[in-house]
Amino acid sequence: MTDQQDQQRYTAAIIVVGNEILSGRTQDKNTQWIAERLALRGVTLREARVIPDKEAAIVKTVNELRARETYVFTTGGIGPTHDDITAASVARAFGVEFKRNDEAYKALLDYYGPEELTEARERMALIPAGASLIPNPVSGAPGFIMDNVHVMAGVPRIMQAMLDHVLEGLRGGALVLSNTITCALPESVIAKALAELQSDYKMVEIGSYPHFKLGALGVSVVLRCTQEGPLKAATRRVLNILAEYDVEPQAVSYQVPID
Amino acid sequence: MTDQQDQQRYTAAIIVVGNEILSGRTQDKNTQWIAERLALRGVTLREARVIPDKEAAIVKTVNELRARETYVFTTGGIGPTHDDITAASVARAFGVEFKRNDEAYKALLDYYGPEELTEARERMALIPAGASLIPNPVSGAPGFIMDNVHVMAGVPRIMQAMLDHVLEGLRGGALVLSNTITCALPESVIAKALAELQSDYKMVEIGSYPHFKLGALGVSVVLRCTQEGPLKAATRRVLNILAEYDVEPQAVSYQVPID
Repeated sequence: MTDQQDQQRYTAAIIVVGNEILSGRTQDKNTQWIAERLALRGVTLREARVIPDKEAAIVKTVNELRARETYVFTTGGIGPTHDDITAASVARAFGVEFKRNDEAYKALLDYYGPEELTEARERMALIPAGASLIPNPVSGAPGFIMDNVHVMAGVPRIMQAMLDHVLEGLRGGALVLSNTITCALPESVIAKALAELQSDYKMVEIGSYPHFKLGALGVSVVLRCTQEGPLKAATRRVLNILAEYDVEPQAVSYQVPID
Repeated sequence: MTDQQDQQRYTAAIIVVGNEILSGRTQDKNTQWIAERLALRGVTLREARVIPDKEAAIVKTVNELRARETYVFTTGGIGPTHDDITAASVARAFGVEFKRNDEAYKALLDYYGPEELTEARERMALIPAGASLIPNPVSGAPGFIMDNVHVMAGVPRIMQAMLDHVLEGLRGGALVLSNTITCALPESVIAKALAELQSDYKMVEIGSYPHFKLGALGVSVVLRCTQEGPLKAATRRVLNILAEYDVEPQAVSYQVPID
C-alpha cells in the first residue's frame, strides 16, 4: 500500500447540526477540536458540513456521508427541546425505530433522580434501535453510535467528553506528521519553487498559507507526510529556497526535527 | 407569499476550500463573518461546507450547491501557489475556459509593477471566461463572480474586503429579526412550554441553546421572525414561562423591543 492510499484508509466527515451557526450567532468550535484529534489518530477528515435543524437535511446528509466515509461525527441537536431533532432524524436515516433505550433511561434516572426526570427529559432516552450509547459525564443525556455514525452533543464541553470516549474505540491509519516554516516573504515569491518541490515529493502534502502580521505579508509553508524521510528532505528544501532569498524563517514548528 | 416562503426566497451556501481547516491547524472564521452579514441582507444561509483543496471535490460541491441555492460563496485557494486550485476548478465546474483576464492582469500590474509581476503572480490573472471581477484592495489579486458563485480569498482581511463589494450587489428578502433571552434554568425545565409556544407560533423560529456559565447550566432562547408582531408576542410568552418558575432573565437582547 502506498503512503497516499494509507492516508485515505480511514476517513471521516463532521456534520454540525446548528441553525445558530448558520445564522452567524455562534462561532463553531467543535470542528477544529474534532479535526485536531482525528489527525492525531491517523484519520483523514475529508469534509465538514454545517446544516440546519431540519429532518430532511439531516437524513440526506447523514446517508450521503456515512456511505462515503469510514466515520461520521455529528454535533448538536440531542437535547430535550423541540428543536433537538438529530437523534430522531438519524433513526429515520437508518430506517430503524426511535424508541426508549433502557440504558439511556437508567443514565437519566441516575443523573436526575426519579422526581426530576420530567417528560421533557425522558425524551432524551429515545435512541435509534440498535445504537450503542456514548456516556455523558457532564449532563446525563447520552450520545450514541449507530453503525459508523457518532452522534454527540453540541455544547463543546459535553461534546469533548463524548469524543474522548469515542476516540478510544476508533481505528486509525498511520499518523500524519507535519513540519511548518513561517517566513516574511509574500507567498508568490516562492510559489514556483514550491510547485517544483511538490512535484518532486508527491507523497508530501505541501500547503502554503499567506497571512498578514504587523501589516506585512508573510507565509507559512506546511509539509505533511506519514513518513519521516521524505518529510525531512522536503523541509530542508524549503529552508534552501528561503536561503536563496536571504530570508531566515521567522518561526519553525517541527514534529520531525531535521537534525 | 407567506413569511416562511419569503425567508426561503434568497438562500446561500458557503464553501470553505481548506486543507488547513480539515487538518485542525486553522480555526475557520470566515463562515461566521459571512453568515452574520447574509442574515443582515435577508439571505438565508442553508449550508456551509469545508472541503479539501482537490479539484474533484470543488467541482462536485460547486455544481451541487449552485444549482440549489440563490448564492454560493467560496473562500480560499485563489492565491499564486500550486495548492491554489479554486479558480481553475470553478472554470471546470462551469465548463468554461480558464484564461488570462485582461482586467485582472491590469490590476496585478498596477499592484506589483511590471518588474515584480512574476510568472507565479501572473497566474492570479487566470479567471474563468465570462466571470466578473471582485476587486482586492488589500493584495491585488482579484476574486470573481461566475453566475451565482462568488469566489473570494481565504485570508480573512482580504475576504472581508471582497465581501463588502459583493454584498452591495446582492438582492435579499425580508430581514430576519431576532430576540434572545438568557436565563439560568436548565433547558429541559422549559422544554415542554417552548414546544407549545413553537406550535402556537409557527412563523417564529424558536431555538434553545444550552450553555455552562460559572459551572451552572443555563439556556438562551432565540426567537427569529421577519415580522415584529409575532416576534413580540412570542417573546412575551417566553418571559411568562420564566415567571412561572420565578426566574428573571440574566440577559436579554432584543432587536424588537417588547415595550
